[in-house]
Order: sequence, then structure tokens, then C-alpha cells
Amino acid sequence: MTPKKLRLGVLASGGGTNLQSIIDNCQQQTIDAEIAVVICNNPDAGALARAEKAGRPHLCINHRDFKQREDFDRAVVAALQEAGVELVVLAGFMRIISAAFLEAFPQRIINIHPSLLPAFPGLHVQKKALEYGARFSGCTVHFVDGGVDTGPIIIQAVVPVLDGDTEESLSARILQQEHMIYSHAIQLFAEGRVQMNGRRVQIKGAQDNQSALINPPL
Amino acid sequence: MTPKKLRLGVLASGGGTNLQSIIDNCQQQTIDAEIAVVICNNPDAGALARAEKAGRPHLCINHRDFKQREDFDRAVVAALQEAGVELVVLAGFMRIISAAFLEAFPQRIINIHPSLLPAFPGLHVQKKALEYGARFSGCTVHFVDGGVDTGPIIIQAVVPVLDGDTEESLSARILQQEHMIYSHAIQLFAEGRVQMNGRRVQIKGAQDNQSALINPPL
Repeated sequence: MTPKKLRLGVLASGGGTNLQSIIDNCQQQTIDAEIAVVICNNPDAGALARAEKAGRPHLCINHRDFKQREDFDRAVVAALQEAGVELVVLAGFMRIISAAFLEAFPQRIINIHPSLLPAFPGLHVQKKALEYGARFSGCTVHFVDGGVDTGPIIIQAVVPVLDGDTEESLSARILQQEHMIYSHAIQLFAEGRVQMNGRRVQIKGAQDNQSALINPPL
Repeated sequence: MTPKKLRLGVLASGGGTNLQSIIDNCQQQTIDAEIAVVICNNPDAGALARAEKAGRPHLCINHRDFKQREDFDRAVVAALQEAGVELVVLAGFMRIISAAFLEAFPQRIINIHPSLLPAFPGLHVQKKALEYGARFSGCTVHFVDGGVDTGPIIIQAVVPVLDGDTEESLSARILQQEHMIYSHAIQLFAEGRVQMNGRRVQIKGAQDNQSALINPPL
């Protein structure tokens, strides 16, 4: 018997490379999930074309058509519920999630951010990491809460920052890890392995790995 | 011909396990440095006993004997200069370094901090990292500047935070890396390989290592 697949609602505002990676993993059945709907707030979002090409349901709910943020959020929540979404996956979605939206999907909205949170929240984070002179950066899959990139952390990947790095080269190194950990996080939800302990997230059955990295290397 | 050894002035307020690791590495000649003087601001500091046992010059300059912080700093700077110190190494030194002190040793004062800065500056950082639910923490050797743990980063080590971690177990995992990277940073100074590029520190001749870590592991 094929296990029931976790129904994903993906929200995106832009090109959607993280969406593409999730589409690919769903199609290749490397994760037990399926894309129930892709919703964009921007009619030009490349994510809509990716969903179309993959034959997945998609719609644009243009935030400019709504006077109040709450009305926009209500429309998005209704569309997600209509599609039977179980996990809301933000993939470059550039709108703040309102309290009413959070309440509609408690502990069921996740985001990916291209830094090792709590370092470098917000925008332009690879540039900030380079300018700070951090020796490591990475990416973080976290629950969405009322703040900006402040929710409980599910999984992180760390990569070194190299002396010759530009914003582009560091972004590319991090993006490679984003594609791995975002689908992995979705699979952890599909397997029912994500548990909360205060704001510490625990993954049932996860192995301990005590590896360390030093940069610059010894 | 034996190369000239880099003369270190180590400032400590407490037990000094990082001092001990530097003493050991100097004695075993795994670094081209020698301890010119150990200065404590606290007569009970275990670091004084460690210096005594290792036969290295040491003195207590009690900050309580000075009405003004500047006077205390002037006394410390005079003692460091008297000892011919070339690199000032803070090892659990719980006093803020004044501007006059910084000017006396420009880009020659380093500190180690038990987090992956800029995440978790200040005190009780392993507890903060656990409570936040960070998947990675680590330690940072950085130049001291006028702020709290804000100076340019020389070297960092990253370790995973494990589900069962307590403040003690995480601190121990980080401390193991502290002992490695602090002596390594000193050796980079001894070899003249530390260069500034704005606030990005570059290490001449360092190898690139593109390894990544994911926690929890895939």
C-alpha cells in the first residue's frame, strides 16, 4: 500500500528554485509529499510557470487586489484549505504572515532562510555575512511565527565562507544546501517525526553526528 | 636557527583552561610562541596558579585598586609593554577593554567566544543557543574592538547541537574546539599570515575547504 502523501501548499513570490527542487523530489518520489497547490502573490512569479509545467494546480492571488493585508491572507488561507493543504511551505514568499494565517495552520507553516539563524535575519543576508566577515554561513528551515525569521528551527546546514567569495558564489553554495534540507524537512513532516519541546524542535529517530568544521582549516 | 617566538600576554579572570591549552602548546612547541606574562585582575584567578606551575611570569593587577577604569587599563598596558608583549590574548578576561588599551595594541588583541558570532554575543551563550533551538553553535576567535564580541573574525569552529544536550555537554563540545582554534590563531599571527581587508580577515595561504554539515543529519 502506498502511504498517503503529505499535501503541500507552496507560497512563492519569485522564480521559485526551491519550489522546483520540491517539485522534482515529489515527482521522483524521494519524498512522500505532493504539491496540492502553488499560490503566488505576483502574477509574474516564475513559480507559476514551474507549477504549470509540472502539471500542478496553481493560482495567483494578487495582494494588490486587497485593501487590507488580513483580507489577502484570508483569501490565501481559503485557497490552501480548499486544496486540502496539510503543510504550508514558503519558498521566497515576500509577504508577512498574519496572526490569523498562523492560527489557521498551527505549527504547519515553514520557511527557509539563507543564513544560520539567529545570525543575519531579514534581507540581503549573504551580503551581510560577507561584510561581517563570518567564517561560516548556511541555511535554516524554521517554523514561521509572528517575527521576521525568528521561529523554532527544524534543520540547519552550515557551509564555510571562503576568502574569495562574492555574494553570488556564497549564495550558490548555500542554495545547494537549501535544496537538500528543505525537501528533507518536508519528509520529516511526512513521517510525523517533528516534535516541539518549548522552542527546541526534536526529530524523532535522528542520529547524532558530532562532526565539527573549522574555517580556515587547521 | 630557531625562529623568534611571538611574545604573548595572556589576560584572564578565572580558571584559565584556554590559558592552560596555550601553555601546553607553547611547551610542546606546537606553536612558535611563548608566554611573556599572564595578568589577572582577580587575585583568586586559577590562571595565576597555572602560570606559576608552568614557570611563566605572572602578576595580579586588581581592578578594585583603581578608581577609574582608565587607570587600571594603563597599569595593564604598562605591564604588557614592560614584558615585551606582541600579541594580547584574552582568556576569560571579564573586563571591557578601553579605547586607550586598544590604541596601545592596534590589531594585536584577540579574544575567544563560545558561539558562532554574530549569533549569541555576551554571557551565558551556550544556554542561549540551547534555548533558541539552534542546530549549530561553535566558537570564534576575533579581534577585540570597542564593542562586546563584535570585532573582526579570525577563525571559527562549528559543532552540532544535539537533541540531548545540556549547557554542560554543549559547553564541553565547544571547549574542545576552543582549545584547537585559539592556539591555531596564535600560530597564524606567529607566521604573519593574518591580514585585514575591511573587517574581513584573510589568512595568507589558507586552503579552501568546501565541506558542509547538516543537523539533524540527512
